Amino acid sequence: MGFAEYFPVIRKLTPAQRKRIEESVTEKKVPKGMVIHDGTTGCTGLLVVRSGLLRAYMLSDEGREITLYRLFERDVCLFSASCMLRSIQFDINIQAEKDTELWVIPAHVWQQLTEESAVLSNYTSELMAGRFTDVMWLIEQIMWKSLDKRVADFLLEEMTVEDSEVLKLTHEAVAAHLGTAREVVTRMLRYFQSEGIVKLSRGTIEILDTAKLEAVLEEK
Amino acid sequence: MGFAEYFPVIRKLTPAQRKRIEESVTEKKVPKGMVIHDGTTGCTGLLVVRSGLLRAYMLSDEGREITLYRLFERDVCLFSASCMLRSIQFDINIQAEKDTELWVIPAHVWQQLTEESAVLSNYTSELMAGRFTDVMWLIEQIMWKSLDKRVADFLLEEMTVEDSEVLKLTHEAVAAHLGTAREVVTRMLRYFQSEGIVKLSRGTIEILDTAKLEAVLEEK
Repeated sequence: MGFAEYFPVIRKLTPAQRKRIEESVTEKKVPKGMVIHDGTTGCTGLLVVRSGLLRAYMLSDEGREITLYRLFERDVCLFSASCMLRSIQFDINIQAEKDTELWVIPAHVWQQLTEESAVLSNYTSELMAGRFTDVMWLIEQIMWKSLDKRVADFLLEEMTVEDSEVLKLTHEAVAAHLGTAREVVTRMLRYFQSEGIVKLSRGTIEILDTAKLEAVLEEK
Repeated sequence: MGFAEYFPVIRKLTPAQRKRIEESVTEKKVPKGMVIHDGTTGCTGLLVVRSGLLRAYMLSDEGREITLYRLFERDVCLFSASCMLRSIQFDINIQAEKDTELWVIPAHVWQQLTEESAVLSNYTSELMAGRFTDVMWLIEQIMWKSLDKRVADFLLEEMTVEDSEVLKLTHEAVAAHLGTAREVVTRMLRYFQSEGIVKLSRGTIEILDTAKLEAVLEEK
């Protein structure tokens, strides 16, 4: 399947605009673990995910992380082209969580086209609104959800992402996703283990009881 | 001064588009404390602040609050018209923190015009990007700043907003802004008092030493 299948808004553009994007878009393969975009890399461009998984995260001055949202197949990453919008005054980091295939649309092409095309500009607004929704959800989680629920929620998401009950995940990785300390995650996972919900071994977390894990989310 | 002074993007629109907005915009006065917009009020429309102060906040299921950002004179509130963007899947509440004068642009007018005008659509993107920046700053604060710094930062902002060292603020109000419990705020303010930074009395917080308050922000 080609680019237009993954980026259907292109069909609503004029032929000249469509050509402009198709001629400038490049393909890119990034291995699992690679950081594609950070505050120092400037304007990487708009990323369209063909396959794989990306994670957008924030980094503190002390090097602590928190995952803001994840981008799956067909998702479009706007903030890797944040130079386009002068009101964006923050840095986001993007890392491949799996081997990932991408299309990259250069930021200057996007910017030029949004200036002339209300369709593309409205599409940009919708993209941003989607990410805004993700981030508002995150604030709710941080502020008002206890950590047991956040860990349970993350493990359930990982099961879906990996399509497996056996997750290759260090406690450190879970902590970086949730923006907390490794020790705190370890304590929580050991509690889950004592409840028969997970089985821990070096570098893996096996989910033994999905129903119990889901029940954690429902507890008052 | 008229509407166009406060909403200069209107000058970049076509005469017909400009007329459409000017004919549909209404003026509104809201008293201090009034909630202008919440999840149940649907689409209030775009708000342009003529004078006063608005605060956008999030509300938990249990009724806890946290301030997301504040809107000052000439600021434009987009999320009170969030029905325009189908990717926005969260509720925001807007409250007047001072007696406030507003212009309200109906959401359907805005939506119609952004569909045809790349200028207005790009303006919408920039507005949203500005609020996104505010919210990313908030996540940083919640995640990685200790509460003493957050309280200090809030008091300094209040001094600027009120243009006074004597702030009419309950501990409850500070807690609602910062999304924490009243007791925690009271403890922190008492500590500030013992350090000679503030003087507390019923319903007011007087800042005695601005330099010391600023120094709290710099501490490691």
